[in-house]
Amino acid sequence: MPVLLTPEQALALDELIAQANTVGLDCAIRLADGGSQPRIRGLGSLQGAGEWEISFLSNPKLQHQLSGCKAAAVILTQPAYDALAETSPVMPYAVVICSQPYLLYALLAQWFDQHRIDRLPTGIHASAIIAEDAVIAEGVSIGPYCVIESGSSIGAGSRLGAGCVIGQNSSIGKDCTLHARVTLYHGVEVGDRTILHTGVVLGADGFGFAPDPRTTGAWVKIAQIGGVHIGSDVEIGANTTVDRGAIEPTWISDGVKLDNQIMIGHNVHVGEHTAMAACVGVSGSTRIGKRCIIGGAAMFAGHLVLGDDVQISGGTAVTSNIDTPGRYTGVYPFADHQGWQRNAAVVTQLGQLRKRLRALESALKATEK
Amino acid sequence: MPVLLTPEQALALDELIAQANTVGLDCAIRLADGGSQPRIRGLGSLQGAGEWEISFLSNPKLQHQLSGCKAAAVILTQPAYDALAETSPVMPYAVVICSQPYLLYALLAQWFDQHRIDRLPTGIHASAIIAEDAVIAEGVSIGPYCVIESGSSIGAGSRLGAGCVIGQNSSIGKDCTLHARVTLYHGVEVGDRTILHTGVVLGADGFGFAPDPRTTGAWVKIAQIGGVHIGSDVEIGANTTVDRGAIEPTWISDGVKLDNQIMIGHNVHVGEHTAMAACVGVSGSTRIGKRCIIGGAAMFAGHLVLGDDVQISGGTAVTSNIDTPGRYTGVYPFADHQGWQRNAAVVTQLGQLRKRLRALESALKATEK
Amino acid sequence: MPVLLTPEQALALDELIAQANTVGLDCAIRLADGGSQPRIRGLGSLQGAGEWEISFLSNPKLQHQLSGCKAAAVILTQPAYDALAETSPVMPYAVVICSQPYLLYALLAQWFDQHRIDRLPTGIHASAIIAEDAVIAEGVSIGPYCVIESGSSIGAGSRLGAGCVIGQNSSIGKDCTLHARVTLYHGVEVGDRTILHTGVVLGADGFGFAPDPRTTGAWVKIAQIGGVHIGSDVEIGANTTVDRGAIEPTWISDGVKLDNQIMIGHNVHVGEHTAMAACVGVSGSTRIGKRCIIGGAAMFAGHLVLGDDVQISGGTAVTSNIDTPGRYTGVYPFADHQGWQRNAAVVTQLGQLRKRLRALESALKATEK
Repeated sequence: MPVLLTPEQALALDELIAQANTVGLDCAIRLADGGSQPRIRGLGSLQGAGEWEISFLSNPKLQHQLSGCKAAAVILTQPAYDALAETSPVMPYAVVICSQPYLLYALLAQWFDQHRIDRLPTGIHASAIIAEDAVIAEGVSIGPYCVIESGSSIGAGSRLGAGCVIGQNSSIGKDCTLHARVTLYHGVEVGDRTILHTGVVLGADGFGFAPDPRTTGAWVKIAQIGGVHIGSDVEIGANTTVDRGAIEPTWISDGVKLDNQIMIGHNVHVGEHTAMAACVGVSGSTRIGKRCIIGGAAMFAGHLVLGDDVQISGGTAVTSNIDTPGRYTGVYPFADHQGWQRNAAVVTQLGQLRKRLRALESALKATEK
Repeated sequence: MPVLLTPEQALALDELIAQANTVGLDCAIRLADGGSQPRIRGLGSLQGAGEWEISFLSNPKLQHQLSGCKAAAVILTQPAYDALAETSPVMPYAVVICSQPYLLYALLAQWFDQHRIDRLPTGIHASAIIAEDAVIAEGVSIGPYCVIESGSSIGAGSRLGAGCVIGQNSSIGKDCTLHARVTLYHGVEVGDRTILHTGVVLGADGFGFAPDPRTTGAWVKIAQIGGVHIGSDVEIGANTTVDRGAIEPTWISDGVKLDNQIMIGHNVHVGEHTAMAACVGVSGSTRIGKRCIIGGAAMFAGHLVLGDDVQISGGTAVTSNIDTPGRYTGVYPFADHQGWQRNAAVVTQLGQLRKRLRALESALKATEK
Repeated sequence: MPVLLTPEQALALDELIAQANTVGLDCAIRLADGGSQPRIRGLGSLQGAGEWEISFLSNPKLQHQLSGCKAAAVILTQPAYDALAETSPVMPYAVVICSQPYLLYALLAQWFDQHRIDRLPTGIHASAIIAEDAVIAEGVSIGPYCVIESGSSIGAGSRLGAGCVIGQNSSIGKDCTLHARVTLYHGVEVGDRTILHTGVVLGADGFGFAPDPRTTGAWVKIAQIGGVHIGSDVEIGANTTVDRGAIEPTWISDGVKLDNQIMIGHNVHVGEHTAMAACVGVSGSTRIGKRCIIGGAAMFAGHLVLGDDVQISGGTAVTSNIDTPGRYTGVYPFADHQGWQRNAAVVTQLGQLRKRLRALESALKATEK
C-alpha cells in the first residue's frame, strides 16, 4: 500500500485539500457521523485504501465499492454522495464532495508524490563532475556521478538523478526533473518544468547515410549537425530516444507527452500537447500536428505531414499524409490461428477475387438480356 | 570458440557431468575406443567444438555432423548412439548417453557460465555510494559507481554490475544478478534469484494524464504513486521497462521471462511463468495469465484480460479479451511489393465487395426461378 | 543555427573544400560578383544558412529557394548554376559547382562535425576504472566514470564517452567512437572505426529457455555462452541491443548500419552493408544477407534466411525465407476508423467469401448450359 507520508507529516483532511487543490475546485467536506477531521498520510484505491488514506470514486460503475471502503475519506460527486447517503444512514468516513473527483485525485497524487518520504535529495553531490564554464543556477539538485560538460547550463530548481550526462553546449531550463541516467548529447536545449525519465537519450545522431559512389553497397555517414529542441512542460518516458537533426534541430513542442521506448527520428516536428503512447516510431522529417493522440506501437513513415487533432489507433502504420482531424486505424484483426490462416490465404488473392467477381457480374448481365 | 575454463579448471568428463547434472538425469558414459576420461574446458557446437570441449546432438537431422565432430565428448540419445555405432566401428570421442541431450546441454552451459574465467568479482567496490540506512546482506557483490539510496536493501548473494542505481525504499532479494546500469526507481521490490539485464528500468512513472479543464489540449500529470513488484526466478532483458502503478503496484509474477526492449505499462499484471519475446508492448491495466507465450513485437491494448496458456504469434495486435487457451494470430501476409499493392487496394473495398457478392447471389436466385 | 566553428577556426571557402573533399570530387568555385573567398564557419539549409555558412541544393525542386538564400556560399550542379545565372544577373553568393552536391555536403558536414567547437576531449579521465591487465592503446580517450574490466582492450584512437562499461575479455578496435553509457558484456569484439551510440547494449544473454520437466510451466535458463562480433565501419544507434549467441557468436558484418532501438536476437547474422531503420526486431538465428535495406519497425521471425539485396518495407512482418532480391511489403492499409471497421469485419470472413464466390461461379455455369 502506498502510504506516502510519515505520521508526523500527516495532514488534516481540510488542510490537505486546501494545499493540494491548486486549481481551486469547489469542494465541500462532510465529516463521518460523529467524526472529526481525519488525518491523512496517503492515497489508495476504494478497495485498497487504509485508515490513514483518502480514496475517490470517479467511475459511477464502482459505486458498490463504497460500502466496503476502509478509507478515512472518499472523494465523491454530489450524485454519488446522495446515492450513498440513501443506502447508508450512518456515514462511515469523511466525504469530499467535488464536481471532478478524478481531477482532485490527480492533484492530490501530485502533492503526495512531491511530499513523499523518499523525495530526491537537493544539493550537488561531491562526485558530480561539472565543467568550470558550466552555468548552474540556484536551488539545483545534481546526483552522484553526473557529468556536466563544457558550455552547458542547468536552470534554477532543476533536479538531476544519479549518472546523468549533459553534453557540451546543452541547456536545461527551470524546475526540470531528470531521473537517473538521462543522457543529452551536445547542443540539446530543454525548456522549463520538463520531466525526462531514466534512459532517455536526446541528440544521438539521426540515421543519415549516402551510398558511397566508390564502392558497391557501402555507406558514407551524413554527419548530423542539427540539435534537439525540447519545449516546456514536456514529459519523456524511459528509454525513449529523440535524434538530433541533420542540419536544423528536431523539435518537440511545449506540453508534448511521450511514453516509454518511443523513437523520434531526425528533423521530426511534434506539435503542442500531442501525446504518444509507448513504442511509437516516427521516421525522419515527419511533422505531427497539435493535440494529436497516438496509440501505442503506431509507426509513421518519413516526410509525412499530419494535421492537428488527429488520433491514430495503436499498432497502425501511417504511410501517407492526414489533413482531416479524426481517428484513423489500420490493424489486422487477430483470430485463433487456424481462422487467421484460412482468411490470410485469401488476402493474397484479393486482386484475383475482385476480377472473378467482375466477371460474374458481367456474365450475369449477359444472361439477363 | 567459447573455451570457458582455464587448463587448471578443466574437469574430467564424469566429474563434469556429476557437477552440472543438478536434475539427476540418468546418464551413461562410453569412453572413446582406447581412450580415458577426457578433461573438458568448454562447450561447443558439433561443427565448432575443439579437443577440450563437449558437444551435443539434440536434433536427429544433424546426425550426419557426428562424423566430422572434433569434440572430446558428445551427448547423444541411445538411438543416436546406436546409429553412430553402426556407421563408425571405432568411436572417435567419448559419448554421454542421455535421454534428454538438450536439457543436459542446458545444465552444462549454466555450470560453465557460472564457472567461466571472466565471472563477476565479489565484494563492494570502494566507489559504490550506499546510503547509511541501506541494508546490505552478506556475500553481496556491488560494482563500481553503483548508487544505493536510503531505505533500500540488497539480499544475500546478490550481485550488482557497474553503475546500477537502486532508488529509495526499494528491495532486491537473495541471489539476484543485476548486470551493469540497471535502474530501479523508489518503491520497487524484486524477489529472489531474479536476473535483470543492462538498461532495465523498473518503476518509471506510468503514462497517466488528465485533460486540463483550464486550457485547450494541455494535460495534467497524474502522479504515479504505486510501485512495482517483480517476483522470484524472473529474468528481464536489456532495455526493457516496467512502469510503476498509478496507485497499486504493477505486478510481474514468479518465473516470468521477459526478453529485451519490452514495455510493460502501469497496473499490468503478468501471471506466473509467462514468457514474452522481444519488443512486446503491454498497455496499462492489462492482465495476462499464467504460462502464456507471447511472440516478439506483439502488442496489447489496455484494460484487457487474457486467460492462462494463451499463445500470441509475433507481430499480433491483441485488441480484445481472450478466455480460451490456444494460439492467436493477426499478421498481414507479406509479399513482393507489387503483389501487396494489388491486394491491399482491395482490402479497403472489402465492405463493398461483400455487398456486390450478396447482390449477385440474390440476382442469381431470381434468374433461377 | 548550427554555427560550428569559432571565428578563429573559420576557413576560406577554397581551403574548406580542399580539406573536406576527401573523395576528390571535381569542384569549381565561382565567387560572388565583386566578392572574395568567403570565410566559412558552418553549414546551413538554403533557408536557414547565415552569412558565415555554406549551403547546398541537391533537390532541383528547391531551385526557387536559391533567390532568398543568405548563405556565404552555395553548392550547386552545373545545370542548377546555369538556371540561377539566367534569372539573377548578379550572383549574390559564392557558388561551388559540383556534380554531386549531396555527397559534398555530406563530406563537409562530417568535417565540421569533427572540428566543431564541442568535440570530445582526449586523454583518460582520472575517474575511469581500468583493470590492470586491460590493454589501452595510444591516443585513446576515455571519459569519466568508465569501467574497463579485466582482459579487455581498447584500440588506438578510440574514444569512450562518460560511463561506458567494457566487460571482461571484450575488445574495441581502432578509431571507434563509443558515446556516453555504452555497455559491452564480456566476450564482445568490435572492429575498427565503429560508432556506438548511448544506451547500446552488446552481449546481453540471448532469450533461451527450456521447459523444466520437473514442473508445470517453469523454465530452465539456457546459459548463453557465445559472444558478439561487431565488424568494422559499423554504426549502431541509441538503445539498440545485440544479444550474445547461445554457443557461437551473434554476427554483425562490416559496414552494417543499425538505427535506434533495434533488437538483434542471439545467433543472428547480418551481412555486409545492410542498413536497418529504427525499431526493427530480428528473432534468434535469422540470417540477413548483404546490402539489404530494412524499413523501420519491420519484424523478422526466427531461423529465417534472407538473401542479398532484399528490401523490406517499414512495418512488415517477415515470416518466411526470401531468396530473390527486390522489395517486400506486408502492411495493413490504414483508413478512417469507421472505414477500417467496415472492411476489417470482412477480413475475418474472407474464407467464406471465397467459397460463396465459387458457388456462384458454378451455379452460373449451370444456368448457362
